Amino acid sequence: MTSTQVSRATLSEHNRSRVLHHVYHHGPVSRATIAKALELTPAAISKITAKLIEAGLLEETGDMQGEGRRRSIGLRMNKSAFHVASVKFARTLVCIGVYDLAGNQLSMQEITAVEHTQIPETLDTVHSMLEKLLAKDRRIIAIGMAVPGPYLRAVGRTAMVSSMQEWRAVNFIDEFSHSLSVPVFIEQDARAGVLSYRLFGQGDADRHLAYYLLGEGVGLGVIDGDETINGELGAATEIGHVSIDVNGRSCECGNVGCLERYCSAVSIHEELNESGIVADSESMTHREACEALFRLAASGNSQAVAMVQRIGTYVGYGAVTIINTFNPSRIIVGDIVSGGGDLLLSAIRRVVDARILPELNARTTIVLADASADASTKGAAGVAVEHFLANPSAFVRGL
Amino acid sequence: MTSTQVSRATLSEHNRSRVLHHVYHHGPVSRATIAKALELTPAAISKITAKLIEAGLLEETGDMQGEGRRRSIGLRMNKSAFHVASVKFARTLVCIGVYDLAGNQLSMQEITAVEHTQIPETLDTVHSMLEKLLAKDRRIIAIGMAVPGPYLRAVGRTAMVSSMQEWRAVNFIDEFSHSLSVPVFIEQDARAGVLSYRLFGQGDADRHLAYYLLGEGVGLGVIDGDETINGELGAATEIGHVSIDVNGRSCECGNVGCLERYCSAVSIHEELNESGIVADSESMTHREACEALFRLAASGNSQAVAMVQRIGTYVGYGAVTIINTFNPSRIIVGDIVSGGGDLLLSAIRRVVDARILPELNARTTIVLADASADASTKGAAGVAVEHFLANPSAFVRGL
Repeated sequence: MTSTQVSRATLSEHNRSRVLHHVYHHGPVSRATIAKALELTPAAISKITAKLIEAGLLEETGDMQGEGRRRSIGLRMNKSAFHVASVKFARTLVCIGVYDLAGNQLSMQEITAVEHTQIPETLDTVHSMLEKLLAKDRRIIAIGMAVPGPYLRAVGRTAMVSSMQEWRAVNFIDEFSHSLSVPVFIEQDARAGVLSYRLFGQGDADRHLAYYLLGEGVGLGVIDGDETINGELGAATEIGHVSIDVNGRSCECGNVGCLERYCSAVSIHEELNESGIVADSESMTHREACEALFRLAASGNSQAVAMVQRIGTYVGYGAVTIINTFNPSRIIVGDIVSGGGDLLLSAIRRVVDARILPELNARTTIVLADASADASTKGAAGVAVEHFLANPSAFVRGL
Repeated sequence: MTSTQVSRATLSEHNRSRVLHHVYHHGPVSRATIAKALELTPAAISKITAKLIEAGLLEETGDMQGEGRRRSIGLRMNKSAFHVASVKFARTLVCIGVYDLAGNQLSMQEITAVEHTQIPETLDTVHSMLEKLLAKDRRIIAIGMAVPGPYLRAVGRTAMVSSMQEWRAVNFIDEFSHSLSVPVFIEQDARAGVLSYRLFGQGDADRHLAYYLLGEGVGLGVIDGDETINGELGAATEIGHVSIDVNGRSCECGNVGCLERYCSAVSIHEELNESGIVADSESMTHREACEALFRLAASGNSQAVAMVQRIGTYVGYGAVTIINTFNPSRIIVGDIVSGGGDLLLSAIRRVVDARILPELNARTTIVLADASADASTKGAAGVAVEHFLANPSAFVRGL
């Protein structure tokens, strides 16, 4: 292939991707509207869309109102034509889901209470579960994975996992990229979370969005303008390891006063085991212990209420740092600890109201994530969908 | 003008800008090389470059080695064809410079020791100085301004200036955008600083770069990938107001433990006035007091050495947060406090070495800025140059 041919092939894939993106987000739309929006000729659009229709990716809708009162045919994406699988790795918990291209969850399985001695068998289990899913559902074209940060993108490894350093030895790229029959894409968990809002969100037009992950670790994903903030190695937006007190609690990462040491599910569980507020918390998983605390607070137990408020205050300190470093228009608080609900949110707001300049505060919304779907797990699916939209011919033949 | 004409005009300005950018950064280059790099036809390149040569912006060089051993003519930008003026506003200090398009400083004037009661007259002085410069140098096509953050971009106002709240009343857009004969562009000071490294830097190919401004305030500008991080309102990367101790010193911004309260020139000056380490510090400007401290430390005064090390430790805490939030490959420490030199840098490094994961630390360089040119002042010029390169026909007729 000469370099001119390569360049032409790249260019046509680029235009194909732009058409797919446009129909994905704006469909149903007429061919004329696509041509205008993308500054391509109607002939080019007809050629591209014909192949996408043939591949089952696009479909024609009935007549829609065209320009100048003419009727025209609409095109929309067939978002159930293909599926993606999603794996979210947390410290002691692995979730495996299947989604369609619109982010609708088709199935969900969990492996809980992973002890670090069980990591090799857990990985084996994940492998065989994925292989079964792929064998059963031929429409799965890719797998997205969400892993705790700091995730070193180029290396394929998490630089450190608090409370479970052994995951550090796992190279996710080596482990999964070569052994499965479809491509695998890996992203830091909270970054996957924020991508799920951009890709699958309804009316989520914010261009400056933060997903604040309060799970077994504390993480953050930020979209600033059109892109996620990644840093040189993919280790940016590690809010869990930002110090809120340079003379505070020490952390396995080497830093002192890391936010994660005060309000992660792991830290909350430790505190519960010491205080005894939740009976029998030692026998629970981190998530179960937090859920028990939140139920107790909801029932009016004053010790539990005070503890949730204290947790919210720390989460609020983190939110203040997020606003001063990233100035998002919306912060979505998600994962295990967001189960603290309005009690938690009120405590967060009190800190932010007191510590953020009024003119910034007035332009920053803080909300709890939709509890019915974990954003990182859905976001891992979203990462796979984004790769598919960016480079469709790598996944579907004959485009 | 019909919408097709508008779109064609926009498109040709877009391509003109791409050609200018390419020659600016890669010149001298042949027309064939430009065509290939930008995926434009040789005819389009000839047409665009002919007008740019006519306007004096590009010039032909002698024969250069072309492809396949053919000789070809090179094009380079005439970076002295036009000039830009630059204004940097700090708390008590205003710098006004003139630069060519390559970022070479042609002149520099300063207004020092601005008291807040003098703000209206200071603004009058800046106005008349700029008018004189414009009258004297007809090559000045734009003015760039660097202002302390948090700078609310759309509003044109700084949300707050520590130690000098009165600047807050100044709307920079209203004040300067309509009264001068050339366009004015305004940017947060540290963001201007980081842009100066990208635009004017030699071999500064880092795509993840941070300029850590330690002046009368503490600020940060970050380039992540191709773009600066701005946030919704332009108030992102406000490291000076990130808390290093949620129970620490209170700050005028409402937050507690703001980094700026520990290592800005203003805070250092306050501490010097209390400790008496520098004789007669009360009568000095913030900059003079810091410079006196650094001279004293360089001469071996143990109290001064200890104080610079303490300042460096706080700057180091900030650097740890910068790495965990933005993961840049290089942090450039600049402005007044960087005068602490190697003594300061060693103290910064000690904190970073102790508190950052080794695999991140190994990939992060921390350097002192070139003391001979202030990055924000030069960067303000760079902001104007960037606007010129992006939209040349708004500045030069007949393109």
